[in-house]
Amino acid sequence: MTPEALNSLLERVAEGDTSPAEALAVLKSFPIQDLGFACLDHHRQLRQGSPEVVYAEFKSPDEIVTISQALIDRGSNLLCTRLQPEAMHALQEALPKVSIYERSRLAMLLQQTNPLPGKVAVLCAGTSDIPVAEEARLTLTFYGIETYHRYDVGVAGLHRILGIQEDLQDCDAVIVVAGMEGALASVVAGLVSAPVIAVPTSVGYGANLQGVTTLLSLVNSCSAGVTVVNIDNGFGAANSAFRIVQRLAQRD
Amino acid sequence: MTPEALNSLLERVAEGDTSPAEALAVLKSFPIQDLGFACLDHHRQLRQGSPEVVYAEFKSPDEIVTISQALIDRGSNLLCTRLQPEAMHALQEALPKVSIYERSRLAMLLQQTNPLPGKVAVLCAGTSDIPVAEEARLTLTFYGIETYHRYDVGVAGLHRILGIQEDLQDCDAVIVVAGMEGALASVVAGLVSAPVIAVPTSVGYGANLQGVTTLLSLVNSCSAGVTVVNIDNGFGAANSAFRIVQRLAQRD
Amino acid sequence: MTPEALNSLLERVAEGDTSPAEALAVLKSFPIQDLGFACLDHHRQLRQGSPEVVYAEFKSPDEIVTISQALIDRGSNLLCTRLQPEAMHALQEALPKVSIYERSRLAMLLQQTNPLPGKVAVLCAGTSDIPVAEEARLTLTFYGIETYHRYDVGVAGLHRILGIQEDLQDCDAVIVVAGMEGALASVVAGLVSAPVIAVPTSVGYGANLQGVTTLLSLVNSCSAGVTVVNIDNGFGAANSAFRIVQRLAQRD
Amino acid sequence: MTPEALNSLLERVAEGDTSPAEALAVLKSFPIQDLGFACLDHHRQLRQGSPEVVYAEFKSPDEIVTISQALIDRGSNLLCTRLQPEAMHALQEALPKVSIYERSRLAMLLQQTNPLPGKVAVLCAGTSDIPVAEEARLTLTFYGIETYHRYDVGVAGLHRILGIQEDLQDCDAVIVVAGMEGALASVVAGLVSAPVIAVPTSVGYGANLQGVTTLLSLVNSCSAGVTVVNIDNGFGAANSAFRIVQRLAQRD
Amino acid sequence: MTPEALNSLLERVAEGDTSPAEALAVLKSFPIQDLGFACLDHHRQLRQGSPEVVYAEFKSPDEIVTISQALIDRGSNLLCTRLQPEAMHALQEALPKVSIYERSRLAMLLQQTNPLPGKVAVLCAGTSDIPVAEEARLTLTFYGIETYHRYDVGVAGLHRILGIQEDLQDCDAVIVVAGMEGALASVVAGLVSAPVIAVPTSVGYGANLQGVTTLLSLVNSCSAGVTVVNIDNGFGAANSAFRIVQRLAQRD
Amino acid sequence: MTPEALNSLLERVAEGDTSPAEALAVLKSFPIQDLGFACLDHHRQLRQGSPEVVYAEFKSPDEIVTISQALIDRGSNLLCTRLQPEAMHALQEALPKVSIYERSRLAMLLQQTNPLPGKVAVLCAGTSDIPVAEEARLTLTFYGIETYHRYDVGVAGLHRILGIQEDLQDCDAVIVVAGMEGALASVVAGLVSAPVIAVPTSVGYGANLQGVTTLLSLVNSCSAGVTVVNIDNGFGAANSAFRIVQRLAQRD
Amino acid sequence: MTPEALNSLLERVAEGDTSPAEALAVLKSFPIQDLGFACLDHHRQLRQGSPEVVYAEFKSPDEIVTISQALIDRGSNLLCTRLQPEAMHALQEALPKVSIYERSRLAMLLQQTNPLPGKVAVLCAGTSDIPVAEEARLTLTFYGIETYHRYDVGVAGLHRILGIQEDLQDCDAVIVVAGMEGALASVVAGLVSAPVIAVPTSVGYGANLQGVTTLLSLVNSCSAGVTVVNIDNGFGAANSAFRIVQRLAQRD
Amino acid sequence: MTPEALNSLLERVAEGDTSPAEALAVLKSFPIQDLGFACLDHHRQLRQGSPEVVYAEFKSPDEIVTISQALIDRGSNLLCTRLQPEAMHALQEALPKVSIYERSRLAMLLQQTNPLPGKVAVLCAGTSDIPVAEEARLTLTFYGIETYHRYDVGVAGLHRILGIQEDLQDCDAVIVVAGMEGALASVVAGLVSAPVIAVPTSVGYGANLQGVTTLLSLVNSCSAGVTVVNIDNGFGAANSAFRIVQRLAQRD
Repeated sequence: MTPEALNSLLERVAEGDTSPAEALAVLKSFPIQDLGFACLDHHRQLRQGSPEVVYAEFKSPDEIVTISQALIDRGSNLLCTRLQPEAMHALQEALPKVSIYERSRLAMLLQQTNPLPGKVAVLCAGTSDIPVAEEARLTLTFYGIETYHRYDVGVAGLHRILGIQEDLQDCDAVIVVAGMEGALASVVAGLVSAPVIAVPTSVGYGANLQGVTTLLSLVNSCSAGVTVVNIDNGFGAANSAFRIVQRLAQRD
Repeated sequence: MTPEALNSLLERVAEGDTSPAEALAVLKSFPIQDLGFACLDHHRQLRQGSPEVVYAEFKSPDEIVTISQALIDRGSNLLCTRLQPEAMHALQEALPKVSIYERSRLAMLLQQTNPLPGKVAVLCAGTSDIPVAEEARLTLTFYGIETYHRYDVGVAGLHRILGIQEDLQDCDAVIVVAGMEGALASVVAGLVSAPVIAVPTSVGYGANLQGVTTLLSLVNSCSAGVTVVNIDNGFGAANSAFRIVQRLAQRD
Repeated sequence: MTPEALNSLLERVAEGDTSPAEALAVLKSFPIQDLGFACLDHHRQLRQGSPEVVYAEFKSPDEIVTISQALIDRGSNLLCTRLQPEAMHALQEALPKVSIYERSRLAMLLQQTNPLPGKVAVLCAGTSDIPVAEEARLTLTFYGIETYHRYDVGVAGLHRILGIQEDLQDCDAVIVVAGMEGALASVVAGLVSAPVIAVPTSVGYGANLQGVTTLLSLVNSCSAGVTVVNIDNGFGAANSAFRIVQRLAQRD
Repeated sequence: MTPEALNSLLERVAEGDTSPAEALAVLKSFPIQDLGFACLDHHRQLRQGSPEVVYAEFKSPDEIVTISQALIDRGSNLLCTRLQPEAMHALQEALPKVSIYERSRLAMLLQQTNPLPGKVAVLCAGTSDIPVAEEARLTLTFYGIETYHRYDVGVAGLHRILGIQEDLQDCDAVIVVAGMEGALASVVAGLVSAPVIAVPTSVGYGANLQGVTTLLSLVNSCSAGVTVVNIDNGFGAANSAFRIVQRLAQRD
Repeated sequence: MTPEALNSLLERVAEGDTSPAEALAVLKSFPIQDLGFACLDHHRQLRQGSPEVVYAEFKSPDEIVTISQALIDRGSNLLCTRLQPEAMHALQEALPKVSIYERSRLAMLLQQTNPLPGKVAVLCAGTSDIPVAEEARLTLTFYGIETYHRYDVGVAGLHRILGIQEDLQDCDAVIVVAGMEGALASVVAGLVSAPVIAVPTSVGYGANLQGVTTLLSLVNSCSAGVTVVNIDNGFGAANSAFRIVQRLAQRD
Repeated sequence: MTPEALNSLLERVAEGDTSPAEALAVLKSFPIQDLGFACLDHHRQLRQGSPEVVYAEFKSPDEIVTISQALIDRGSNLLCTRLQPEAMHALQEALPKVSIYERSRLAMLLQQTNPLPGKVAVLCAGTSDIPVAEEARLTLTFYGIETYHRYDVGVAGLHRILGIQEDLQDCDAVIVVAGMEGALASVVAGLVSAPVIAVPTSVGYGANLQGVTTLLSLVNSCSAGVTVVNIDNGFGAANSAFRIVQRLAQRD
Repeated sequence: MTPEALNSLLERVAEGDTSPAEALAVLKSFPIQDLGFACLDHHRQLRQGSPEVVYAEFKSPDEIVTISQALIDRGSNLLCTRLQPEAMHALQEALPKVSIYERSRLAMLLQQTNPLPGKVAVLCAGTSDIPVAEEARLTLTFYGIETYHRYDVGVAGLHRILGIQEDLQDCDAVIVVAGMEGALASVVAGLVSAPVIAVPTSVGYGANLQGVTTLLSLVNSCSAGVTVVNIDNGFGAANSAFRIVQRLAQRD
Repeated sequence: MTPEALNSLLERVAEGDTSPAEALAVLKSFPIQDLGFACLDHHRQLRQGSPEVVYAEFKSPDEIVTISQALIDRGSNLLCTRLQPEAMHALQEALPKVSIYERSRLAMLLQQTNPLPGKVAVLCAGTSDIPVAEEARLTLTFYGIETYHRYDVGVAGLHRILGIQEDLQDCDAVIVVAGMEGALASVVAGLVSAPVIAVPTSVGYGANLQGVTTLLSLVNSCSAGVTVVNIDNGFGAANSAFRIVQRLAQRD
């Protein structure tokens, strides 16, 4: 029920065309969600400004191609995450303009640019963390956010992270992607003043427990200012960074 | 080595009082940390602007009183977290101006105000989560950040959280404190566009596993935009929110 | 806003005392929750018919006494669960009519009876499971449901459970409270046709892991028809059984 | 020993052909199970009224085809669960009338209808939970129970579940299938009065721990009235719902 | 129904006082358990020959004294396990003849001897495992079994266990009580031909996880012939050893 | 050093060909293991009487064939456990007389019989537990022990196990193979007086945790007299049963 | 049997007082351990040179005082670890010369000095790790090893560890004591060439899991050269460092 | 900035070509890492003397071949660890001089020898542990360290390890590779005075939990002097042993 409909109902009451009892029945029975929540949902898109992302993990290659085609046709940017190999192949065949990032299991096509003010750093500890770091970096690009990235800067060779601390000072958020013991996040949070979002990776073996050890380690960081997302969830980290940058954009 | 000392060394070289070789020896052997890292550390305080917090868990009551007295004497604000009962008692005795928040195990004294622009919401799901939520809220206050809070708004009665969604739209970050299954964080992240920082609590029993279940549940949130800190870590959530708000402050 | 208030608003519109625009402003600005969710919540109470229960775990003795007094004063039945010893003592002092069940940490006062059709069995495997079983049984009594109970009927002496299988056939749900390996639930679910709700208990030692082993064991029951609630959660099992019996009541 | 055999024994005693001592020896030595438990088992089938289901996980394709053929030949309905791909292929070849539900790993053939009164809702949070939800829904159909289903109604977009709450009020049980943090079950249990049976799914990644996180999360639901079955156990949830509906049927 | 009652029923049939049909009705309706399982249970006691043991963990001191008095009065031997300190005190007061073993939380009174042939060794790795080892040894004594014991024979000083290997050859079962990594069980099982029953203890700290590490370690023993009971379950190990010795007794 | 060598050394001393000092040097320096532990090991074989078993898990097909051929050539019986498919194929090709048990991953050839007195029961709860149960049963056969077996006798249909309780009374040990919640072991241990050796299986899904749940459940059995071996370790259970039966054999 | 006894036996053989057969019987039957393992054990003490340490955890105060008195009387150095408060009190009363280190639960008395060449660093990340670090440092002192220590040098303020890297280069082993995520060990192992022994501490809360998270994190260190001991096991780390230094001593 | 560049800057100051202020600006702004940490890193290589190792797990076959070729071309020794099968194949094709160790997933080419004084023992418990033991042994060889190895010396046959204890006394460190319960490390640490580095392996099944049980068991070793590395981390153990031997080398 739109405000207009509500208004016209009240006017019919004022004019005697509708009795108060009839109006009451209408108002009592109108489904909350028809008013509130369709709106609510609409508002959510408006407020968040975050374009839709295709989470491809459990969709068939055909479904993914169809959805992607539709988004492209209406001029939207496209981001598909967690693509299976067959889906990447199907996309490449059907939509050759779309870029495929195989190790990050992503597909992206940017048709328009909506740059946001703010910059987000994406760091990773080892070369094996790169696919997850790239998922974060590409998602930020999709969101229109400038990124700074340095990969393979783990603490076993501390000079690597110390060498870029100046650069990190300019960033509004720092995404740290790390497997193993996740020490990089603690070190970075001690070096910068921006919020640090840590992404544990499932890289490692043995007592790494597919990333659970890293996850638990990261939430125990000795540095304040570190928050954590799920294992290998580069997209989630980028989404949280996007939410931070959005608040900045509203200030400008 | 201060910049002054370095300057005077260089001037002695320019004046011929010191040979380049002698200066080189001094520069090569001067410990990196004496230059770089005292600076670095100093810079860190400057850049972060975050006043020192007394983490009291493993300090004796006497140590805590001494440190607190010193901070107060130099005119700083005081925040002590994770106080044991005896330490709270000792503080109350020695420093009656300090406010004690018993269930949150906090002590605070605000002697000066450095308000930051921005507002952070603190929500909690059940009444038993309140001590942790208050740790977050009071820490934000200590950092000079305006807070909005609503407690006992868990999803078992959904109207409670839906009733305040407008208020949440104004906030730059939302801290959600929840025990049990932690569903509140997912619901809130679906309603707002700001970043959501979730704090699992150890409240619950049985398969709650002292908060580990809630922690793991929260990192699996079906809503993007949720990041997580350690169990019962209200302080850590507030510190991350503070880092976000600080970036906003730099925009103003 | 109550239906009465809404009705009187509409009547004022009909009578010309309030213009449609004024009414629209009222209706537009009234928060969804004031209309919708108070309703929703109200409806929930109405539909579920489940009287309020006081979950006492994290409430102070004073708070519990105050809430309990208020419920008694308005003629309601009273059920407090998870009482701490001091709270039980405070209740006994302040409200001597209330019955205290110390080992089950419950307090109850029945001032009115609203019997529901249907019967629920409460079984437990060992004598140490009795406090949890009693929490379930007393909660069912509070809900107005007839109970059948047999305690200490674990499978180490199989004749005990076989001896009562006829009795179990009459019950609309069977709550099985068990620690250790939880075998009783599997055996019971093989003997009856009613739904079986299993409550793992934290009774045991060593590899029992405070009930987690029993919980995991129960969800792996080799008999279909077993569902599980949290460890020691006698109240939760009773609430689920109450929801089942309520559906029966609607058929009568 | 059949009742007939027992009767003829007693008649031989009455006629003096068998002495009481001889009869006593026969009765004492006749195995309890020959009388009691064959009966018992027979009764179990009768009482439960639940037709036999073929659990195919560890059976060979040949075994499954043979069993299925036999059930079909005697006019029974057929339900095979947990089929491996080869078994699905073998069934399709051998018994083309049987419907195969590939993603749910089910095969079903309904030759007769035994409708039960009552309706059960099947909800799932995400599209990836659909195979498990369908296992539950199809099993309910096999049991002759009317179902209502809505898929992809997770709490990240709350309007989806709020939009169907009226529909849910009519259902005698609600099966909620959810992965990740399982918040949907808590929200649904707060909206309806019927029992909620939650099915954790192994969908997710990282800290989801193949569904164990969801399972533990669900047993910690902040809403009373939620019971839980094993991970991905759509069949088990349907069987429990069937047991509930059966009790209703006895009331009619 | 006792055999006598059954006999008299059959005699009434033989004498014509009861018709076969009447007798059939009685026999058909008499609950299986009244005949079968009281018997069954009785038989179980007879066959197992294992005297009743009082598991005291969750019983009140009064209950324990009452049960113990009753057993003593009928001339039985008494064994109470898992006594709480208050219960030990109460027993000592009320029944001064009973021996109390404080660290093993046992009480025992032997009034009659029923020696079984066979000998069981009880070993433990460290001095801190002694209370559990003594629980096993005293339980064996209660069962009438000769024991051989050596304590503090862990593998860090291998000569200790090698020095007694001859003695171990004579034993019909070896109970190995060990905390930490549980290496003693593997070493012993490589030295003897008798079955080894391992009892993990909760002794240790840190990654010992209250004995769970030891338990898992023991079930992974590199030596075949090791079986395991629950953590700290000296009684259970003794009961299994008793069952082994009983089979030997039947051979003699 | 063999006893003969030692003897000849001593004789040379007696005859003056070797001085005591020379002999002392030889004896002091001869490695303990050459005397003691080769003996020890030899004794171990003698005492245990358990023929060698080939654990094939990590051996190449060629190695397995070579070892097997050697054992057969010297007239021994052959048992290979944990064979990979390729190894089974290689054995079948090279040694066609050897029987292959594919689902149990075993190969066996009996060339001589050494029957032991005693009988061991092997039970399993579900059809999917049969491969592990067969590993136990075939290993017992290899050891020359008579077996009694009944498969698919889980407690969901209790009449199945009750129907064979008489048979179980005759057995000297009962091996219970079970997945899921492992209730069968508790029920069996309540019905028989012999030691029960429980083998958890990795059969199941979800919260079964590949058998860890079953393992932990079994060590928590509410019936005394149950000991447990590793998941799927049918061989280990059989070896423990063999050790029990061996003690019986020594009594005859 | 001592070498002397063996010699005299051989001499009796040489002199004809004992026949070779008699000597053979003696030698064959003399228990391996009497010769070999008493020696072995004796040798172990000699070779290791590590003085005996009193592990006090499960000893009574009286036992500890008695053992300590005995060691002091024979002029040995004394080290008691894991003392309970009562035991510390008893020692202080009885043996006032002994130094008590309350927070590390240690007692020590050095009566003689046996300095070993080599130096071991002991670092800890936070002030709460100090008691465990002191257990390591004092144990090293007891072993006669020079120590270098710096406490509270965690990576949240990286300049602290960087400031002492020169000092660390001189050390033959570095013990890193850390709770939380344990990042310090990875950073240190990247800075030094000596072996790093990491001691996880149980300091922390929530997802720290009493040190298990730190332990698992440390074994996943991204720097090679880190080995790990049990949680809070400062003594064990010191013992390993002692074994390293001992090898150095043998080189000098 | 190299020392040369710094020197030339200072000379320009001395010569008046550059003013002190200009030099100060250069020195202040030159990034710490360009001076300090490139140095630092360089120093690390110099001090540790450990040649670079190629960790191949997440590198493509092409990358591995390229890196290996480059190392060989500059005359270095080559060690690649954690090679995938395709990478081993690619190396074999491209660089036939390189030795491939398939089961240990290693490739090695020694072009020069830098022998270190000292000897390290590598032991493993079972044949299935050999690949990991070989990873350790070959890495030690690559580091120029003499090794002693004995495989398949597990404690189930204790004579095997006792037979080599003399040999072990000569070693400066002992690496013990073991799966299952890891008892070998405890036994070895009791026999030798050198530091013991334990490597848990993922060999085993069921409750082995892919090596986590062994890992936890090893850190609970009842023998002091055992430190532990990650599961299957033969390389890490060798690196720690190398660090120990390096300290010895500095003494010579």
